[in-house]
Amino acid sequence: MPTLILLRHGQSRWNLENRFTGWVDVDLTPQGEAEAAKGGELIKAAGVQIDRAYTSVLTRAIRTLWLALGASGQTFVPEVKDWRLNERHYGGLTGLNKADTAEKYGDEQVKIWRRSYDTPPPPLAHGGEFDFSKDRRYAGAVLPDTESLKTTLDRVRPYWEGEIAPHLKAGETLLVAAHGNSLRAIVKLLFDVADDAIVGVEIPTGNPLLIELTDQLKPVSARYLDESRAQPLPTAA
Amino acid sequence: MPTLILLRHGQSRWNLENRFTGWVDVDLTPQGEAEAAKGGELIKAAGVQIDRAYTSVLTRAIRTLWLALGASGQTFVPEVKDWRLNERHYGGLTGLNKADTAEKYGDEQVKIWRRSYDTPPPPLAHGGEFDFSKDRRYAGAVLPDTESLKTTLDRVRPYWEGEIAPHLKAGETLLVAAHGNSLRAIVKLLFDVADDAIVGVEIPTGNPLLIELTDQLKPVSARYLDESRAQPLPTAA
Repeated sequence: MPTLILLRHGQSRWNLENRFTGWVDVDLTPQGEAEAAKGGELIKAAGVQIDRAYTSVLTRAIRTLWLALGASGQTFVPEVKDWRLNERHYGGLTGLNKADTAEKYGDEQVKIWRRSYDTPPPPLAHGGEFDFSKDRRYAGAVLPDTESLKTTLDRVRPYWEGEIAPHLKAGETLLVAAHGNSLRAIVKLLFDVADDAIVGVEIPTGNPLLIELTDQLKPVSARYLDESRAQPLPTAA
Repeated sequence: MPTLILLRHGQSRWNLENRFTGWVDVDLTPQGEAEAAKGGELIKAAGVQIDRAYTSVLTRAIRTLWLALGASGQTFVPEVKDWRLNERHYGGLTGLNKADTAEKYGDEQVKIWRRSYDTPPPPLAHGGEFDFSKDRRYAGAVLPDTESLKTTLDRVRPYWEGEIAPHLKAGETLLVAAHGNSLRAIVKLLFDVADDAIVGVEIPTGNPLLIELTDQLKPVSARYLDESRAQPLPTAA
């Protein structure tokens, strides 16, 4: 039976500093490392055998995958890393402290950028501190300079359909270690969540969400491996 | 210019216990982890940009790769894991303490198994504690039940020629994090080392060996990134 595990990375250094991170490649904190290992232990305890693992090209998700694979006793699983599983690109907000941003743009505007489905922040300036276009991990890719959750989903979708879904349809068990918003995009695709409902879906960090699917990739069941830290599961539109 | 970095994993738990490890999936010790990270720091200090990384399906090599990629600031590099980069399979010696083995078989015989090019130990018993044929990481593979250095090279060669060499010929910089004997096999292939000389080639652990190659994959230069811990470099037959 096609099975998908979604694992959101835990605390990163900028979570601590309360800054808009997006595509900036900050590492996990020791707490974030522990969350990842805990996720792996939960996968091991559930007896899930992973066939293939996916992650973004950002260190906090990659190391979450590594730590989870290690703790689950499945280091040997093939890994694929792709920028299309990156966190939402926060455009011109990248690197800003959230309090300073609210002071500069107003609480209401920041809330819209953070919580609306399709309003992106202003674009990231080229040539600044956070210009990702020169980073070799993105060589050959056409990159956004800002993203809403909608445009995040627009770039997750072809990767999902072209790279991930075929392996699920072959009956594999996959682990995707990624970010709050790229995982929201996958959840929206799978569960057909309405635009205004998906922004309220909050996947807990370090708590694997195990989803069993039909051959046509319709969800049959979904559960968090740590039930004590579960969040309400998405409901279809 | 095609560039290859060979990185041998450091201390594992069974190194400490002085047991024949081979394909048993023992993890690194904290010292082995530090060696791996040091290897990554040396790669970073040398300014080497890795395009692709290879490792075995054994945790001590995989985690060496992960720690080295992390410490070099290149977590995002694509990784490929394959059993054909595994350590030499120690057959019936697998799991035995080296002192006990010498007592049972005699020092001379053990020396031959360890140091001859083409004499394999007795085969591993099927169905015993260390029967790898039921391990899903080897599903679909035709596995040896013992190996000499020669037969180790026999299974490394097609992987080298079919999977690694084409990427080098395309001008890539590759990192191979693996084991004493699978790395010996690669060194023998590249430097055309004589059968009786290769067993004396000892690649230090955690010390990246950087080899620059012609387009036809003939070595142009070779150096250890930590020169203070260098060993004599292989010489051609």
